[in-house]
Amino acid sequence: MAEKKLVESITSMDTDFAQWYTDVVKKAELIDYTSVKGCMVIKPAGYAIWENIQKNLDEMFKKNGVQNVYLPLFIPESLLQKEKDHVEGFAPEVAWVTHGGTNELQERLCVRPTSETLFCDFYKNDIHSYRDLPRVYNQWCSVVRWEKETRPFLRSREFLWQEGHTAHATLEQAQERTIQMLHVYAEFCEDVLAIPVIKGEKTDKEKFAGAESTYTIEALMHDGKALQSGTSHNFGDGFAKAFDIQFADKDNTLKHVYQTSWGMSTRIIGAIIMVHGDDSGLVLPPKIAPVQVMIIPIQQKKEGVLDKAYALRDMLEGSFHVKVDDSDKSPGWKFSEQEMRGIPVRVEVGPRDMEAGKCVICRRDTREKIECTFEELETRLRETLDTMQREMLERAREHRDAHTYTAADMETFERIFNEKAGFVKAMWCGGQECEDVIKEKLSVTSRCMPFEQEQIADTCVCCGKPAKKMVYWGRAY
Amino acid sequence: MAEKKLVESITSMDTDFAQWYTDVVKKAELIDYTSVKGCMVIKPAGYAIWENIQKNLDEMFKKNGVQNVYLPLFIPESLLQKEKDHVEGFAPEVAWVTHGGTNELQERLCVRPTSETLFCDFYKNDIHSYRDLPRVYNQWCSVVRWEKETRPFLRSREFLWQEGHTAHATLEQAQERTIQMLHVYAEFCEDVLAIPVIKGEKTDKEKFAGAESTYTIEALMHDGKALQSGTSHNFGDGFAKAFDIQFADKDNTLKHVYQTSWGMSTRIIGAIIMVHGDDSGLVLPPKIAPVQVMIIPIQQKKEGVLDKAYALRDMLEGSFHVKVDDSDKSPGWKFSEQEMRGIPVRVEVGPRDMEAGKCVICRRDTREKIECTFEELETRLRETLDTMQREMLERAREHRDAHTYTAADMETFERIFNEKAGFVKAMWCGGQECEDVIKEKLSVTSRCMPFEQEQIADTCVCCGKPAKKMVYWGRAY
Repeated sequence: MAEKKLVESITSMDTDFAQWYTDVVKKAELIDYTSVKGCMVIKPAGYAIWENIQKNLDEMFKKNGVQNVYLPLFIPESLLQKEKDHVEGFAPEVAWVTHGGTNELQERLCVRPTSETLFCDFYKNDIHSYRDLPRVYNQWCSVVRWEKETRPFLRSREFLWQEGHTAHATLEQAQERTIQMLHVYAEFCEDVLAIPVIKGEKTDKEKFAGAESTYTIEALMHDGKALQSGTSHNFGDGFAKAFDIQFADKDNTLKHVYQTSWGMSTRIIGAIIMVHGDDSGLVLPPKIAPVQVMIIPIQQKKEGVLDKAYALRDMLEGSFHVKVDDSDKSPGWKFSEQEMRGIPVRVEVGPRDMEAGKCVICRRDTREKIECTFEELETRLRETLDTMQREMLERAREHRDAHTYTAADMETFERIFNEKAGFVKAMWCGGQECEDVIKEKLSVTSRCMPFEQEQIADTCVCCGKPAKKMVYWGRAY
Repeated sequence: MAEKKLVESITSMDTDFAQWYTDVVKKAELIDYTSVKGCMVIKPAGYAIWENIQKNLDEMFKKNGVQNVYLPLFIPESLLQKEKDHVEGFAPEVAWVTHGGTNELQERLCVRPTSETLFCDFYKNDIHSYRDLPRVYNQWCSVVRWEKETRPFLRSREFLWQEGHTAHATLEQAQERTIQMLHVYAEFCEDVLAIPVIKGEKTDKEKFAGAESTYTIEALMHDGKALQSGTSHNFGDGFAKAFDIQFADKDNTLKHVYQTSWGMSTRIIGAIIMVHGDDSGLVLPPKIAPVQVMIIPIQQKKEGVLDKAYALRDMLEGSFHVKVDDSDKSPGWKFSEQEMRGIPVRVEVGPRDMEAGKCVICRRDTREKIECTFEELETRLRETLDTMQREMLERAREHRDAHTYTAADMETFERIFNEKAGFVKAMWCGGQECEDVIKEKLSVTSRCMPFEQEQIADTCVCCGKPAKKMVYWGRAY
């Protein structure tokens, strides 16, 4: 049957999760590959998700006092080199512009991999007095990192993101903003994307190049791998000293500012796919779905069916993102497409339903079918979408909790990672040597030192020395 | 007086229009210069205007069936070279990436100056059948053109824009879409930005590299120079043949698609400044102003004044973009700042007003003061903003019409351009030689062959041969 082909052509998650992912991003028409190695086209269905992410996150930013700006795409080489750790972290993976037209440039420019150095160069002239602080700026843009291995959304040579960059009068205010934005990301992930996250701090080994401390939200994908889903960095006054960003304080002395940055990227679309998807394709949380309700007419050539479908759409349009699939495909094919694209609910309406004054709502995630009258439809849809949003988060949290383990000693730690996939909570001495050993042996990294600490044991899971922190460990994308 | 300094430091428009422009973009805090030559920082006040432009235009696009996508920043050199005219037009002004990290690339990549070639490369694999047509895609992004002389918003090495790229089954449909989008731009400029435009077609000399025909909207700035404010191109099947983009038509034969592209950029912010601004700074049309109403408390330290200002803000917040200037600056200083930033109206409220139960609305463009009660305030503000929006368009149209001349012969034509600044309507034979002569002699270019043709004379203003078209001529940014 033709209807089945669309679905059959996806690899099952359990057979090959990586192939399933690749199949979904292509079949749900989120992206296409290009002749530019490592770069992708984000197609309408994919970009509409990003637009909704932008809209929701940008609203939250503005409520948190963030102002949007736009800084150049290019960074002169000498500017990138001003902060030692930062340039070491990024120089190996930047794209270099050497010619403008037919002329060789006097100084190479890199295509921004991130814009700390540009914001510093700007703030240096923009900030004079304590009255100018805080500066809480953000930009939505694309960045380039010359990755060797790439995967759609998860790792590509160019990706879209937002990067916030702030400047403050004191270290405390910078720290407050760092944590404030981490909470914004966490709230966005849980409330809007139905993705539960662990909030915590990165170890020194895993922190951002040039940061004093990096905070992260970590999510667990369906296959038990971790995905760093948003980060927030406190730079202290390190960049300010390297770039000489000073302000006249109330006491009339010159002081260096304290800075932060924080970012979330199109990578999060990968998280939506890998947390919620199933063997029929994408499953989009109602709050982020570009189309929330697809009305599918059954026997649409019969008199009145299409008209009824359009009438329902017109009725619902003010409350939901709703469409009618009036193409000349069969209903079965349309069901498969709606499922592949992850549209939260479909409404089936055919001649028999119409006679009975009823239609059927079908939930994408559970496949539950709900029969209701046309009068009830709007209310039932609202209930269904709300329930679905809530249950998707609950299900993802249950999955994560069921795949979160604890290990008090190295034997248990190794056994879990050899037999299972998920987070392992274990104690750590604070030494980078232990992180190196664990990475070498198991390809496992410290994901974060969570804000919610537990006392699993007294000693480091790796070296047996006294433990300082509980760490979430995992294999990561 | 300190209050005056802000204003006095702007050069008057009549003294030096170019310097006035530079002063306004800086003093209104729209942009800042950077260490990257020819690239600018768009600051919050400038970026908020762009966000409103995006919001308005994107809504209009979506009503016209446009879907947003995102394509790569880079174009491989071989791809750029596929369409002969196109590469000749753009290659001299692109930035070339030659290295990724420490490795030299096998093939140079240019940073997109425009994305026709990328869309073609994508459509080639994306379009198979007549069922896939039309494709009406758009992207919001930044582009790079290695310009020698740059000016904020008007000409910079990197700028923000949207570029629409469509594919159709027939030439007629492509032509229809080309004109449809030109009308969208014209409507947007007149309705939202209060900028009247001339719609017309470019001559072959002035058309886009690779286009069969280019349509444009041309606006007249306050100094009498023209600004090309948006363009829409019909490519016929030229790109489709160069890139081999074919589809199976209903009759089962393979045919090439017909394509269009259309764009509007941050350049339009330059038009807003130069059409509406005055010697006190920016004047923003209410529909595009990020802040529409600034409430300025008088004697704000007196009891109840600030509370009243906040209460008015809370009352108005649902209807307007409104702010209170509660900084510790003097009212005079605040007035100057509100004027410099082009905020459409200010509301003055002080102790005496409060006793009388009244406040004063002051219009930015005419300086007209309107006294009203607090109860009337919302209604009066709505009226004032509507009137201002309408009158700004009328005034701009009157200015343009007063600076639009006609010339039937070369002597008149030259005299006008030597003595005056504006559009000159004159007949043209259709030969590029005459355009070259006119450009050489007067630095004047053909702006467009307007849709609304008039018969000024029977012969070409330049060579005296029979005329084919009436052309708008002008000096341009």
